[in-house]
Amino acid sequence: MAENKALGKSSISFGEPVLIMGSGSIVGQMENEGPLAGCFDKVSDDKNDMFGEDSWEKAESALQKEAIAITLEKTGLDANEVRYLFAGDLLGQTIASSFGVLDYNIPFMGLYGACSTCGEALCAGAMTVAAGYADTVMCLTSSHFASAQKEFRYPLEYGGQRPLYASWTVTGSAGFLLQSQAISQSANKAAKNNYSCKIAITGVTVGKIEDFGIKDSFNMGCAMAPAAAWTISTNLKDFGRTTDDYDAIFTGDLGSVGSDALYTLLDEQKIDIRSKHYDCGMLIYDLNSQDVHAGGSGCGCSAVVLSAHILHKIEQGEWRRILFVPTGALLNKTSFNEGQNVPGIAHGVVIEKIEM
Amino acid sequence: MAENKALGKSSISFGEPVLIMGSGSIVGQMENEGPLAGCFDKVSDDKNDMFGEDSWEKAESALQKEAIAITLEKTGLDANEVRYLFAGDLLGQTIASSFGVLDYNIPFMGLYGACSTCGEALCAGAMTVAAGYADTVMCLTSSHFASAQKEFRYPLEYGGQRPLYASWTVTGSAGFLLQSQAISQSANKAAKNNYSCKIAITGVTVGKIEDFGIKDSFNMGCAMAPAAAWTISTNLKDFGRTTDDYDAIFTGDLGSVGSDALYTLLDEQKIDIRSKHYDCGMLIYDLNSQDVHAGGSGCGCSAVVLSAHILHKIEQGEWRRILFVPTGALLNKTSFNEGQNVPGIAHGVVIEKIEM
Repeated sequence: MAENKALGKSSISFGEPVLIMGSGSIVGQMENEGPLAGCFDKVSDDKNDMFGEDSWEKAESALQKEAIAITLEKTGLDANEVRYLFAGDLLGQTIASSFGVLDYNIPFMGLYGACSTCGEALCAGAMTVAAGYADTVMCLTSSHFASAQKEFRYPLEYGGQRPLYASWTVTGSAGFLLQSQAISQSANKAAKNNYSCKIAITGVTVGKIEDFGIKDSFNMGCAMAPAAAWTISTNLKDFGRTTDDYDAIFTGDLGSVGSDALYTLLDEQKIDIRSKHYDCGMLIYDLNSQDVHAGGSGCGCSAVVLSAHILHKIEQGEWRRILFVPTGALLNKTSFNEGQNVPGIAHGVVIEKIEM
Repeated sequence: MAENKALGKSSISFGEPVLIMGSGSIVGQMENEGPLAGCFDKVSDDKNDMFGEDSWEKAESALQKEAIAITLEKTGLDANEVRYLFAGDLLGQTIASSFGVLDYNIPFMGLYGACSTCGEALCAGAMTVAAGYADTVMCLTSSHFASAQKEFRYPLEYGGQRPLYASWTVTGSAGFLLQSQAISQSANKAAKNNYSCKIAITGVTVGKIEDFGIKDSFNMGCAMAPAAAWTISTNLKDFGRTTDDYDAIFTGDLGSVGSDALYTLLDEQKIDIRSKHYDCGMLIYDLNSQDVHAGGSGCGCSAVVLSAHILHKIEQGEWRRILFVPTGALLNKTSFNEGQNVPGIAHGVVIEKIEM
């Protein structure tokens, strides 16, 4: 078996690719009215996106519970065949995850990286499988528009105005089932591959907190752009690659404003990603017609776009190797009210199509 | 090099022990008035434990910043020699960590496991080093009495009464520097060993969320006891050990009430740990004289007790192999106010003395 390698400042190249055997997504109604309509596995049938619950927080836990169920069903596995679960969300003390995953009885590592958590979970999950610590793990994140507004800004009833550079928290959750090559080829415990090819995580770049002094919690795109720039440039340096080595580079939720900031920051390092950059926050909504201002955001944003869109395009051959970089803004309402900055973090995941 | 092994349901045995090269602790004044007085590396010189800051949240970040500084100084390393940092705390969106670790520029994975986070960080850190992903990592947690009261219950000014089964959140933070055997023996980047012997993490048991229906957020001991019982019994099963194989078993912060619940739960599985069980929450304060009711709690509690007490006793030969099981209660103020249960989680870390 080829060896895993620690590369450069912060990256890891896996000796054996860690397979993404399947993924399941669930979203609110508005997410299914955007450009990715029809791509999700399940959509809320209730215009308030309560998912059968009586509070927004419980609704978000229901999203996670459902995302696990869909992912297990699509991959044909039982919960007890998943050795570890890596999950997180945006709520205080990550309660959406605690209550969402409870019933599955899977050993659990709780993560917090704000909206970068999907990247952090995929990094931790892939590292765990590649090290041989587990045959099969699940990575999971969620966000809910209403629970996030209440958590970070004002409850919806307050009716506060949002500035044009603000983003819109995605209501959604996605789970990803990672498995080692060896177990995927065995008669026992092998998951059903949801794709007609092998799709795998071949390396990761763990992010670093970057603080550029942004103090406006609505302006998350600019708060996160420096962290995305660090992760992208570090990934290229660590792996000895140029942007030519990636067919596409996805950030999590920089939105239109943050994406421009990212281009400017990378220009200083003579890195130009404009022709192959997509932002999950701008893919999920129609920015002209859906009144979301700068785009989507939230732990669920990059997760559902990866699950419902990116992985399928890789399967279809549109992209062969991509860099997936969910981005997070590190704040809470107390730090914001006490006048602290909003630093950012972004974790990088290299995902590739591998011929069967 | 011996191989890492995934054992049983949730445990990992490391082929090469992951060395704890050093550790640094900082606490508030009250923590230094208990049984461990004089054992900590640094103590607040301000009776309000503000650590030079103007808010409780910033004070907690200052604790983390200082714990890293002490740990780096004691091990003779620069921050840039630490490849990854695993950290967490109790505040919403783990802001104590985000702002505490910011200046060190170390690639960062944010964790949330409530008061079990010290165990989660040591699991993740040791797994990362043992897999060869990093030569050197730091694991870090903190809690602050005043920031935790404000976060979970009432700000101190409110003067609320605490029931006798409530615990007292420890003001403190500790960092742990983990290093691979190979790098510790090299001329380059080897940390100064703070101990006269090798102390190492030889295995871990990742915890699982357990919900026994507790609804009282003050009664955290009973909320966490089932998770501790699961982790201890799973560790014994997975490693094929009995309690005789451990010289001592430490829980994080069950307190007096939760410890009794743990004994009862383990009795059902015919496991008796009474003669070798210690609870970090009961080691840090004098329960008779310090008016802390059931004992200490918080992410910082088990961390500073491990750093200032347990590791030294292992060095002195009092214990040869211990099981360290920080325990966490999974709630936030919204979940509590909405009447949800308080589930618990506990992560297990096997720490051993290894002859030089």
